[in-house]
Amino acid sequence: MREIGVTLLGLGNVGSGVVRLLTDNAPAIEARLGARVAVRAVAVRDLAKARKVDVDPSIVTTDLEAAVARDDVDIVCELIGGETVARDAVLRAIGCGKHVVTANKALLSVHGDEVFEAAEQADVDVYYEAAVCAGVPIIRALREGLASDRIEQVYGIVNGTSNFILTEMAERGRPFADVLAEAQRAGYAEADPTLDVGGGDAAHKLSILTMLCFGTHVPLDKIHVDGIDSLTPVDFEYADRFGYVIKPLAIAREHAEGVEARVHPTMIPKNWLLASVSGAKNALYVKSYALGPSLYYGAGAGMMPTAVACVSDVIEVSRNVQAQAAGHLPMRSYRRMVNRPVLDHGRLRSRYYMRFGVLDRPGVLGQLANVLGDHEISIEQVVQEGPREAERPVRIVVTTHEATEGNVGHALEQIGKLAAVVEPAVVIRIADAP
Amino acid sequence: MREIGVTLLGLGNVGSGVVRLLTDNAPAIEARLGARVAVRAVAVRDLAKARKVDVDPSIVTTDLEAAVARDDVDIVCELIGGETVARDAVLRAIGCGKHVVTANKALLSVHGDEVFEAAEQADVDVYYEAAVCAGVPIIRALREGLASDRIEQVYGIVNGTSNFILTEMAERGRPFADVLAEAQRAGYAEADPTLDVGGGDAAHKLSILTMLCFGTHVPLDKIHVDGIDSLTPVDFEYADRFGYVIKPLAIAREHAEGVEARVHPTMIPKNWLLASVSGAKNALYVKSYALGPSLYYGAGAGMMPTAVACVSDVIEVSRNVQAQAAGHLPMRSYRRMVNRPVLDHGRLRSRYYMRFGVLDRPGVLGQLANVLGDHEISIEQVVQEGPREAERPVRIVVTTHEATEGNVGHALEQIGKLAAVVEPAVVIRIADAP
Repeated sequence: MREIGVTLLGLGNVGSGVVRLLTDNAPAIEARLGARVAVRAVAVRDLAKARKVDVDPSIVTTDLEAAVARDDVDIVCELIGGETVARDAVLRAIGCGKHVVTANKALLSVHGDEVFEAAEQADVDVYYEAAVCAGVPIIRALREGLASDRIEQVYGIVNGTSNFILTEMAERGRPFADVLAEAQRAGYAEADPTLDVGGGDAAHKLSILTMLCFGTHVPLDKIHVDGIDSLTPVDFEYADRFGYVIKPLAIAREHAEGVEARVHPTMIPKNWLLASVSGAKNALYVKSYALGPSLYYGAGAGMMPTAVACVSDVIEVSRNVQAQAAGHLPMRSYRRMVNRPVLDHGRLRSRYYMRFGVLDRPGVLGQLANVLGDHEISIEQVVQEGPREAERPVRIVVTTHEATEGNVGHALEQIGKLAAVVEPAVVIRIADAP
Repeated sequence: MREIGVTLLGLGNVGSGVVRLLTDNAPAIEARLGARVAVRAVAVRDLAKARKVDVDPSIVTTDLEAAVARDDVDIVCELIGGETVARDAVLRAIGCGKHVVTANKALLSVHGDEVFEAAEQADVDVYYEAAVCAGVPIIRALREGLASDRIEQVYGIVNGTSNFILTEMAERGRPFADVLAEAQRAGYAEADPTLDVGGGDAAHKLSILTMLCFGTHVPLDKIHVDGIDSLTPVDFEYADRFGYVIKPLAIAREHAEGVEARVHPTMIPKNWLLASVSGAKNALYVKSYALGPSLYYGAGAGMMPTAVACVSDVIEVSRNVQAQAAGHLPMRSYRRMVNRPVLDHGRLRSRYYMRFGVLDRPGVLGQLANVLGDHEISIEQVVQEGPREAERPVRIVVTTHEATEGNVGHALEQIGKLAAVVEPAVVIRIADAP
C-alpha cells in the first residue's frame, strides 16, 4: 500500500491529538484513502519534555530544518503556533516543495497572502481547516459548498472560552472574574486569557473568514474588537428580560461600499439558532444570496477536535497527491483575491443596548433622550429602575433602533459630560437573525 | 477565459434555479473558478411548456442523447429525478466520458453502486451534494471534513415538508390533515405527499448518508420507515409536558454487529440543538469519535437552495477538470465500500413513549405493566388521566427505558388483546442527544 509521508512540527496538545487520531483511526483512514499515512519525523523544541502520546523516539528531533526537508515526506503539518518560527517553517516547507497543513490562525491572518502566494508559485497545497472552529468543516463549506453562492453576512461564535464564560454568566448569574478563574482551573481558559476574552483570537479567525467569504484581506487593525471582560451580571438580566442572550460574536458583512468586520459581545434574540449554541461550542451562521441561512456547529477547540481538522486536511492533500492534483486546486475560495475596501468603524450600523447610571433627579431621562435624538439615535424602549438603595444611582436602560457607531460614540461622549450621569455607560450591540 | 461546457437535463424547478444562479452569480463564480460556466444544451420533454427562466431557445432540445454526447460539454447536470430515465441518462453521460452532477437521491439510493462503479471505470466524477439537505454541504462535510474521524451516529431532519408539518402541529395544536392541506395550498407539500410524509424521501437520503458515514450500502427495504401521518395533537401535548418535541428523524448508528438505519417521528429533548430546527429547515446532527457532536443546518429544499448544491458541484468538478484531477478524487468517502451487515429491525433499541386508551376499570394499569415487564420493557414514568367525558376511554401514557423493537412489538400485540384496551396503542420512539 502506498505511503504518504508526514512531518509534524510540534508535539503539544494538537500534535499529540494528530498522532493519536492517526493511530486510533488508522483502519478507517486507510479504507478511505487507499494509502497509509506515515509520520516520518516530529520536530520539537525540547526532547526531554513529557508527551501525551508515545512516539518512536528515533523520529523525534530538534532539527526542524532537516525534518521539513526529508525526501520521504510529502506533507508538513505545522502545529507550532505563533507568527515567527511558524512562518519561517511554513515558508521553508513550501520552498522544499512540501504541502502544508496548518492549524495556525495567527499566521494566516497576518501572513496569509505571503503564504498562499508562495504555495501557488511552488505548486503546493496549504490546507488550514483547523484554523477556524477546529474540526467543524467551515473552511470547506465556504470554499466548496457555497462556491456557487454569494455570501452576504457571517455571524460566528468562534471562541469557545468566551462562549463558555458567557454561558456560565447567563445561566448562573455569576460575575466575569469568578467564571474566568474557574475556567482557568478547569483548563478551559489559558493562564493568560487575553487573546480569548479580549477578542483577538476571534479577530484572527474573522480575518480568515472574510478572505473566504468575500475574497478580501481584512488586516487585524481594521477589525473593531471588544472583549467580554466588561460584561456584568445585571446586563444578562436585562438581556433575558428583553428576550435576548449575550453571545461573543465575530461578524462580517458585505455592503456596496465595502466589507465590515467586528468582534464584540452581542445581544441576539433567544429564538435565533445561534442563541442555543452554549458552553464551549462554536458555530458559524452564514447568510447567502441563494441558500439563505445555514449554520455549522461543533467543538471549536480541544486536542481531538482540532486533530480531526488537521488529519482530514492531511487526507485531502493525500488524495490530491494521489490524483496528481496537489497544488492545482484553489486554497482560498477566490482564484484571485478581489480586494474590497474595509468600512471605517464609525460607519458601521447596529441596534444598541445602553445602560446608564444617573442621579435620581427630574429631567435626566429627557436630557439623555435629547442627546440621543440629536445624534439620529432613535429609542426603541426605555426601562428606568428606581434606586434600590438610597445612595445608589438610578439605572436607565435603553434599546435603540439602528444607528451608526460614529453617532453612538459622539452621543455617549456628550452624555458622559452630563452632570447627572455618574457612571460610565455600558453599551452592547444587538443583532437580529438576518 | 476558459469555458466549461454544461448540459442540463431537465428545466423544472431545480433546472430553472441552476440557470438563474449561473446568471445571477456569474461574476463571483468566474472570480472563484477562473473559468466561465457555459450552458450548451438543455434537454426537456416538452418544448412548449412555460418556463420560470429565459433560456436561449436554440439550445433547448428534446434530443437528450445528442445533448449528453456534445463534444463541447464537460459536465452533464441531471435534474430529471426518478430512477428510470435518469438512470439511463446518467449512465449514458458516463459512457460518453462526461462528468455528472445530480440532485437525484432516489437514483443514488437504488442504483448508486452501479453509477459510482461506472464512473470509476470511466474516470469521471459524479457529484451529488443536492441529494441530501440541498445546499447545506453535508456530503462534503462527511466525505472530506470528517474523513479522519469515525462517525458513530447521525440524526437528520432531512425532509422539510415533514418538519414543517410537525412544527405547525406543535406550535398551533392543529391536526395533521389540516396542516397538510394548508402546506399543499402554500406549495410546501406535493399534491401526492406520500413520499414526504410517509418517510420514503428521508429513507432515500438516509441510504446515501449510510454510504458516506459507514461505507456500506443499506438497501431501502432494510430501512424501517414510519411516516408522520398517525400523529395527533394530544401526543404533542404529552411531548411538551415531558420536555420533548417531536421531530421527523432519519437515524443511522454503527454497532459492533452492524449498522442500524430507520426513519420515524421521534421525541427529542427540548435542549438538544436539533429540537430548535423548525419549519421547513433541515439539519444533520453527527456524533463522531474524535470531534464529538457537530451539526449542519439550512434549507433542505427549494429552487435556489437546491441550485446552490448543483452549481457548487459544477464548480468543484470544473476545478478538478482544470487541475486534470477529475475522475481521480473519491466520490464516496470510502475508496472501497466496506459492506457491513444491517441490523434487523427487531434488534434495534430505543426508549419509547406509549399511549393507551383503556376502560376505566381497576387493575388495568397493572395488566399493562405486567405485559411490559414480561417483555423486558422497564417503565420510566406513567401518567394516567381520568376520563374527560363519561363514555371516553381512560388515557394511560408510559415512557420506557431502552428496549428492543422486537420486544415492544410483541408486548403491544399482547396488550392489544387485553379486554380493557379499547384503542390501538400509539407508540413514538424517544432519542436523547448522544
